[in-house]
Amino acid sequence: MEMDNMEQTGGAIFEQGKQSIKVPVPVYIRASASVVGTKEGKGPLGSLFDMIGVDDKFGCDTWEEAESTLQKEALTLAIGKAGLKNSDIRFLYAGDLLSQSMASSFGLGSFGIPLLGVYGACSTSALTLASATIAIAGGVAQYAACVTSSHFASAEKEFRYPLAYGNQRPASSSWTVTGSGAFIISSRKGECDRAMLTGVTIGKIVDFGVKDSMNMGACMAPAACDTILTHLEDFGRVPSDYDRIITGDLGMVGQQALICMLREKGCDIENVHMDCGIEIYDKSQGTASGGSGCGCAAVTLSAYILKQLEEKKWKRILFVPTGALLSKTSFNEGQTIPGIAHAIELVSP
Amino acid sequence: MEMDNMEQTGGAIFEQGKQSIKVPVPVYIRASASVVGTKEGKGPLGSLFDMIGVDDKFGCDTWEEAESTLQKEALTLAIGKAGLKNSDIRFLYAGDLLSQSMASSFGLGSFGIPLLGVYGACSTSALTLASATIAIAGGVAQYAACVTSSHFASAEKEFRYPLAYGNQRPASSSWTVTGSGAFIISSRKGECDRAMLTGVTIGKIVDFGVKDSMNMGACMAPAACDTILTHLEDFGRVPSDYDRIITGDLGMVGQQALICMLREKGCDIENVHMDCGIEIYDKSQGTASGGSGCGCAAVTLSAYILKQLEEKKWKRILFVPTGALLSKTSFNEGQTIPGIAHAIELVSP
Repeated sequence: MEMDNMEQTGGAIFEQGKQSIKVPVPVYIRASASVVGTKEGKGPLGSLFDMIGVDDKFGCDTWEEAESTLQKEALTLAIGKAGLKNSDIRFLYAGDLLSQSMASSFGLGSFGIPLLGVYGACSTSALTLASATIAIAGGVAQYAACVTSSHFASAEKEFRYPLAYGNQRPASSSWTVTGSGAFIISSRKGECDRAMLTGVTIGKIVDFGVKDSMNMGACMAPAACDTILTHLEDFGRVPSDYDRIITGDLGMVGQQALICMLREKGCDIENVHMDCGIEIYDKSQGTASGGSGCGCAAVTLSAYILKQLEEKKWKRILFVPTGALLSKTSFNEGQTIPGIAHAIELVSP
Repeated sequence: MEMDNMEQTGGAIFEQGKQSIKVPVPVYIRASASVVGTKEGKGPLGSLFDMIGVDDKFGCDTWEEAESTLQKEALTLAIGKAGLKNSDIRFLYAGDLLSQSMASSFGLGSFGIPLLGVYGACSTSALTLASATIAIAGGVAQYAACVTSSHFASAEKEFRYPLAYGNQRPASSSWTVTGSGAFIISSRKGECDRAMLTGVTIGKIVDFGVKDSMNMGACMAPAACDTILTHLEDFGRVPSDYDRIITGDLGMVGQQALICMLREKGCDIENVHMDCGIEIYDKSQGTASGGSGCGCAAVTLSAYILKQLEEKKWKRILFVPTGALLSKTSFNEGQTIPGIAHAIELVSP
């Protein structure tokens, strides 16, 4: 990696003119947890999740409260696995897909941890990890926590139609994952760290003019393409330097678009590409293009990806969840659906 | 300030067990800009804003697009005033009140700056400044930009009723400010810096069980109380150490609640308290309790507060915008309206 034009400010290192951060001090994922709904529990990763709900309301009266409960359970589990108490966590980074990040507002108040709310649509898991890494590498926290979630029923109601309407789903549509992932990030090496956070690439808004809210893969693929290319260029790497380059929820339609777009730019990721949305459900589960939602990337990271790193099956991966910057209002007003993708480089501990 | 139990990680300094960050290296507000609507232009601070719209649609077809335009204009102005170009800005922190931060998604794409979306309801201006300060003090950026906005018409439609419905407004209601404030934060001393960012207190969610979306002041005052007390305790200060302690949009009802709550805790801020929501409109403008919205604190900070610091009329202030964690869905489902407040300590440059 070329390190000319580097600048030292405070304690960390950045390079001017580059979009990425090479994390200058060790930052660890100390522990993590995943809580999912019934459909995810029956999928190919089912046995790896920490908790599977008996039903998707998680004992609550509304879908939104159920989603808040997912976050609460995931964070409680993650803090417990890290052997910490709430007051050890200096900052909590959290967000979700609902209007005004409602699942986080009502799921996380009882923890009493200073909260920095973030919004990156389905890229939120990477945005929380990137923000926590910046804080920890910069020396303002010893422990930070990251939480995000999505819920099939609350998301359909928020972005498309209430479930009771029974709308038809085209082949390009994806199925919002009911799930929450929580991560404890630390500046100190622990005995059982799951991975190290070594690089961050913050994405830009990329708008290819797609307007179809039933084809999120097409909306987000251009952003994933931009962030992956920028990351590789900033770090002077090629796709084969990674055991996997993992998008969050492009699904089968978006995966094809991403691979084609990158190939046009002379970058072939086909052999190392994985998409959480494709992994989380079996084809027999009838999810059309695959899984989606903030929770999709978050629970797959916690349950499956970190396991491979922890067990040294993979040495280095690039985690690139993508977000579709869509709202009901913007959709109804005929706006496009821009995308954004943030990338996190993770290595085995 | 007691600095025992201090820890050095990376380059910055934090104290375990405290909620605040004493910013360990100089961080400057290099430049800022404010763009407002017609009503704000006619208010007491009217002559101080950088741009006042001719009408509140800002040449757009929808209120949401108008709000995006506010952000675009404010950021363009701020970057220009700082003598920078878009590519000099390493990170952009932005958010707004609309579902899925729609105003930011559609207002900021054209800048091509890596975007970290944040959500803190009406505390968002402080959350963007806190996040940028953490990044810059930690050494991962030389320049960052912060943008937030609100718009009366888009907010009424988002949270209460469309304007055309003509609902009545109780005396406790506030008037969402049409405006956007943008700030350029830098690690380097400039010739005309507006202020220095010296302390940050990230707030917790505080829920007193208030459910009235027409009384945001009462929902948010408990959070302001908690954050102000924590800040003073963490820094070992008293209210008179500040020329002003400035909340964002408590309005007249919330101000009274805050002063009373703090007095019960043995802390009297009455002589130094100011609320942006009370300053921005004249009583004759019929806004009931005062102004509110992300834009309220942001434009008042840019146009009025930073001017006092820049001109050395004030030496040190505490800027504490408060957010009501409310969504249409949570309100309709009978949920409470929790609050959150983040505090930023600013000193004259």
